[in-house]
Amino acid sequence: MKRLAILGSTGSVGEQTLEVLDASPGRFRAVALAAGRNIAKLADQVRRYRPALVSVADAELANDLARLLSRTEREGVEIVFGPDGLDAVATTSADLVVAALVGALGLRPTLAAIDAGRAVALANKEVMVMAGALVQRAAARKGVAILPVDSEHSAIFQALAGQRREDVAKIILTCSGGPFRTSSAEEMANASVEEALAHPNWDMGAKISIDSATLMNKALEVIEARWLFDVAPSQIEVVVHPQSIVHSLVEFVDRSVLAQLGLPDMRVPIAVALGHPERVPLDVPSLDLAALGRLDFEAPDRERFPSLDLAFRSLQPTGEGGSEAAPAVLNAANEVTVARFLAGGIPLPRICEVNGLVLEEHLAEEPGAIVLGLDDIVRADAWARARAQDHLDGKVDSGRELQRGSNERASARRTVGAMP
Amino acid sequence: MKRLAILGSTGSVGEQTLEVLDASPGRFRAVALAAGRNIAKLADQVRRYRPALVSVADAELANDLARLLSRTEREGVEIVFGPDGLDAVATTSADLVVAALVGALGLRPTLAAIDAGRAVALANKEVMVMAGALVQRAAARKGVAILPVDSEHSAIFQALAGQRREDVAKIILTCSGGPFRTSSAEEMANASVEEALAHPNWDMGAKISIDSATLMNKALEVIEARWLFDVAPSQIEVVVHPQSIVHSLVEFVDRSVLAQLGLPDMRVPIAVALGHPERVPLDVPSLDLAALGRLDFEAPDRERFPSLDLAFRSLQPTGEGGSEAAPAVLNAANEVTVARFLAGGIPLPRICEVNGLVLEEHLAEEPGAIVLGLDDIVRADAWARARAQDHLDGKVDSGRELQRGSNERASARRTVGAMP
Repeated sequence: MKRLAILGSTGSVGEQTLEVLDASPGRFRAVALAAGRNIAKLADQVRRYRPALVSVADAELANDLARLLSRTEREGVEIVFGPDGLDAVATTSADLVVAALVGALGLRPTLAAIDAGRAVALANKEVMVMAGALVQRAAARKGVAILPVDSEHSAIFQALAGQRREDVAKIILTCSGGPFRTSSAEEMANASVEEALAHPNWDMGAKISIDSATLMNKALEVIEARWLFDVAPSQIEVVVHPQSIVHSLVEFVDRSVLAQLGLPDMRVPIAVALGHPERVPLDVPSLDLAALGRLDFEAPDRERFPSLDLAFRSLQPTGEGGSEAAPAVLNAANEVTVARFLAGGIPLPRICEVNGLVLEEHLAEEPGAIVLGLDDIVRADAWARARAQDHLDGKVDSGRELQRGSNERASARRTVGAMP
Repeated sequence: MKRLAILGSTGSVGEQTLEVLDASPGRFRAVALAAGRNIAKLADQVRRYRPALVSVADAELANDLARLLSRTEREGVEIVFGPDGLDAVATTSADLVVAALVGALGLRPTLAAIDAGRAVALANKEVMVMAGALVQRAAARKGVAILPVDSEHSAIFQALAGQRREDVAKIILTCSGGPFRTSSAEEMANASVEEALAHPNWDMGAKISIDSATLMNKALEVIEARWLFDVAPSQIEVVVHPQSIVHSLVEFVDRSVLAQLGLPDMRVPIAVALGHPERVPLDVPSLDLAALGRLDFEAPDRERFPSLDLAFRSLQPTGEGGSEAAPAVLNAANEVTVARFLAGGIPLPRICEVNGLVLEEHLAEEPGAIVLGLDDIVRADAWARARAQDHLDGKVDSGRELQRGSNERASARRTVGAMP
């Protein structure tokens, strides 16, 4: 029986994780659950899965949850809350921690889980995007496995099974191309929020749908892949594959390519991570290639989708003027620019334009920066958010020399260490 | 340094095996080579690779080879010949025996290699088609690995790396569809030998080209897959994929599918088998999916291509009226019918028609037959050849009850043991 701690049990990945548990009775046990504010759903999960530990966002919600549960239902269930609650779930005695929080919130508990020697099933992509170098070093130090949960990285993880890392030539991430794959640059410039939200294959939240429209989603996955699989950025490629059936591929030194395929269903990568090294039988539809008929592939248009180049730029080695905080800067700038786009404030191409300006400013100011700890990430993140806001608000004359002077940015510069 | 013994060193697979050796200097050493009659090429190979042992078809050719080599070139090279020569190469001290002979000739030395505990890289597909049950039992008894060398089975072998056999749901063999993929039944009935020889993706010999045209090639691969990977026939599917880029796929119990892809190049599966569990760098072109643009898939037409059903029929379990000699019977009948087609004697559909008649006669006469040794295979093979000839020569009224009485067939019936 594999004991699971789930960070984000009431979210989409958390719920589907519990569906995978349901599909294999007796194989897994959810020993700890952390949710945010959805205590009604959490109370249902407590009744059904009887975890020993549950965490919610704050003390008030903890009290509310306790009241929702009967005396019998509460028995043997410890209720904790806040950041310490997340850490308690992340470090509880478990065989696998499912890191399915959304955004930067998941960074600290995921690192806590790794430091406690727990294997991590990682769905919370910001963890690797913002703190890839840090997480990779921590995982290597503790010898813990990080099992990717999104479909692309799970595909690569599966293709790498039984293979030697030194035999890998390159990793090829597939990309649906998003709703603007066949649009002109002009159509993209005039795209409405609604048009940008219409993803062809996956039903997702607003932020990630816009990231799919700009290919920033794929850019962030390039960054994740670099750290998850410890490959050089030059070993990562992206190919557009509109049907989202081939989830990604690995080419080896003998030019043999292994790919993972399947109908889009998050339960598959979840089951792969949960069951590893065993597979968990799932009652999901089989891939029928003959019924599908065809799979298409094309090169991404790097003019219309500059986000891919931004990803590789953010991964430039510190010895060549890069910064370990650059991916966090790119990610933070993108969160701000996407929010502004969703609010109707800017045209779609302005997202990557501002992301790029903030990234270049960071690299100009912090060449060779290395990340010593989470605080460095948090400060680089804050600096990039402020800087992106400044650009969006027209407070920066980006054609001239970079403006300086915000205390926040000056502070960020001091705390992101420079390579000795 | 991995020591290789190559059965069939002057054939297509043998030569490409040596190319793979050349591509990785210091990694492999060819310690023994067996060829047939092409002693000029074999002499070149002896000069270049300095094997300790070489074998040719007969004593006269052994003398000829000795004369072709200078005294210095002959030094330290033992020259043997005939079936005993093949056995000597197959059982010499080596880390891997490359079984690349063509046809039934390879059966005995391949079994000898397995009995001597040698790992086998198997390109000689008749070995598994004719004697799959026997070879599988021998390999299991000796604990030796059989590494497939053709592209489809190598794809499956690669997709299974690092996976548990009990997690396999099914194996999906891809098939180009051959030159008559889009033809009508009438066009196939009127096809000329030249039309049937025109394979779209691979440049192959006449026999295998016709097998591709009838899909008997895929039928034989279904039989191979059943024994190589010890899966039930019901776990094997065939999908038509005209571009021959996806070489085959494996579906697991979680509906995740792993596939191996690449440009058609036999050196890749050869290198995979030779290097296993390491990969051998090859200077062959990379797969460029964006440049290819699309991959197509369709269900095979089992009306126009009855060979697939014949394969599954030949794999019927002995407990359900099947015969372990049935695949050998199907293969032998097919060799005779293909030869007759190539001689211009019959229309293309008659190949599978006669193959099916002979197979059904065998099953009617030998339900539950098990194969105790090579002699059983050899006799079933001879019976099927004679019977196929009879059908082609119009000596059988196949509409009425099966004719009996040939001494050869009676003899075959006695020696193929019946399940106790």
